[in-house]
Amino acid sequence: MTDQDTSLFQMTLLHRAAAVEALLTDLLSDQPQDGEISRPPRLMAAMRHGVLNGGKRLRPFLVMESAALFGAGTPAALRVAAALECIHSYSLVHDDLPAMDNDDMRRGQPTVHRKFDEAAAILAGDSLLTYAFELIAAEATELDPGAKVALVTALARAAGIGGMTGGQALDLEAEKVKPDEAGIIRLQAMKTGALIRFACEAGAMIGNANPEDRERLAEYGSAIGLAFQLADDLLDVTADAAHMGKATGKDAAAGKATLVSLHGIDWTKRQLSGLVAQAEELLAPFGEKAALLKQAARFIAERQS
Amino acid sequence: MTDQDTSLFQMTLLHRAAAVEALLTDLLSDQPQDGEISRPPRLMAAMRHGVLNGGKRLRPFLVMESAALFGAGTPAALRVAAALECIHSYSLVHDDLPAMDNDDMRRGQPTVHRKFDEAAAILAGDSLLTYAFELIAAEATELDPGAKVALVTALARAAGIGGMTGGQALDLEAEKVKPDEAGIIRLQAMKTGALIRFACEAGAMIGNANPEDRERLAEYGSAIGLAFQLADDLLDVTADAAHMGKATGKDAAAGKATLVSLHGIDWTKRQLSGLVAQAEELLAPFGEKAALLKQAARFIAERQS
Repeated sequence: MTDQDTSLFQMTLLHRAAAVEALLTDLLSDQPQDGEISRPPRLMAAMRHGVLNGGKRLRPFLVMESAALFGAGTPAALRVAAALECIHSYSLVHDDLPAMDNDDMRRGQPTVHRKFDEAAAILAGDSLLTYAFELIAAEATELDPGAKVALVTALARAAGIGGMTGGQALDLEAEKVKPDEAGIIRLQAMKTGALIRFACEAGAMIGNANPEDRERLAEYGSAIGLAFQLADDLLDVTADAAHMGKATGKDAAAGKATLVSLHGIDWTKRQLSGLVAQAEELLAPFGEKAALLKQAARFIAERQS
Repeated sequence: MTDQDTSLFQMTLLHRAAAVEALLTDLLSDQPQDGEISRPPRLMAAMRHGVLNGGKRLRPFLVMESAALFGAGTPAALRVAAALECIHSYSLVHDDLPAMDNDDMRRGQPTVHRKFDEAAAILAGDSLLTYAFELIAAEATELDPGAKVALVTALARAAGIGGMTGGQALDLEAEKVKPDEAGIIRLQAMKTGALIRFACEAGAMIGNANPEDRERLAEYGSAIGLAFQLADDLLDVTADAAHMGKATGKDAAAGKATLVSLHGIDWTKRQLSGLVAQAEELLAPFGEKAALLKQAARFIAERQS
């Protein structure tokens, strides 16, 4: 990336992040909304702590830029993006729990169960997960019911048994029996890949893309999802904790098999270049309109935190 | 209730329970389904242990009987009923965790985190919650998209911040600051009432009922939801653990304020009779067709376990 590309991409990422954070701040206020009897202030504070934590908002960016590729207006894409960020955030809140990864810090802040308590973290995660579906079904008002049903279905599949939670379950089992290469790839495609793939496919769905383009965006999502995980595994080996805002070297310490531990750092870097090239090729038919999504692929592969 | 009424109601309850359990057994098999990469066997086993546990399936019964009141066919109602049971079951799995109620037994069986482990129980709960929305959006194929969106919205609201998880959060706070009577009623309307109200309203939605009838069913659901909680609080005082299949006397031991602790056993029994009369009055316009739903109200108020 040239410096100019970088700065346009970084600016847009910040701009999209600000929009999704403003919406979530509004939606997750203490004020009871349509049809609600009451909103417990401590639950809402725990939910906000889990979501409004300075994340990069990469998934929301992907939803919104993918939708923009098909000329879809901002409000519906923003709401689906916010719903996806609720799902991503809930998974981090539960993942950090003592019974799971037992992490005290995330992005330089105490995790939800450290700041509040375990019960609050469990309920805040459950509430964020539930709210994501309400957000798509009730708030994305410009979408027709058919599009909403397709999005709810795709999100539930990406987040559930055959996607994220299934991948997390495989990850727990991998601590006992080390998976082979195919097993690692499957685990990662489910655990982190499925939501990133959904982000890109959702944009195409919101934009009412034809089936071929929708599949193209989904494939782009798969490529950058794998790149995301490879970059993450690489960072776990090479970065220091201060830079990451969380503990590093945990995979190696846990004896966890990753593609990096299997094939080494140089192989991983070559793979990452290959995935960026693949992502760019998938986006080639969209020409200049897809410039930011191409830069996103590069950013994901080269990120330092 | 006459003995004959009782036996017709009990038979129908068992019949509906068998249908929803057969469907859930099928849906929660180890076999990957449409669009899924893989289903981790241990996660599926934990989910099945959490759901297929010999529950009475009262909420599914209410969905199906309410739908039948409006002539709605069984398949869609059965799927929405199964989705609701997934939500109810996930809430029990998470509620039993050490950080929440810390229960070792449920219905005479070890709880999910005792049978498996805490991480499996957290993930199984998350997966059941997520799957409920997939089930409505993807599997209830006879419903039009508009009905599905309305059901997803209503279920997410009943299960989330302004409903069940919000009520659970209020319940945790009630351990520190005792709520007054209005506070107890609000807490219970959210924690247990919202899902029971949803069950009855969902039946009307599936049956495409007019707004007045939909509201009538929702109100019936609110009345029996409150009766359910009063009967539960009464049982906590009067029943023994062997009968309930779980620990009893916990509310009193925890110094927890309930309407029973506030007003006594006799007042509670009079309230229960009043709620049954109210439920019957709400169903009066439907005549004989609503006989089983009237018996359900009586069953809920008089149940011994």
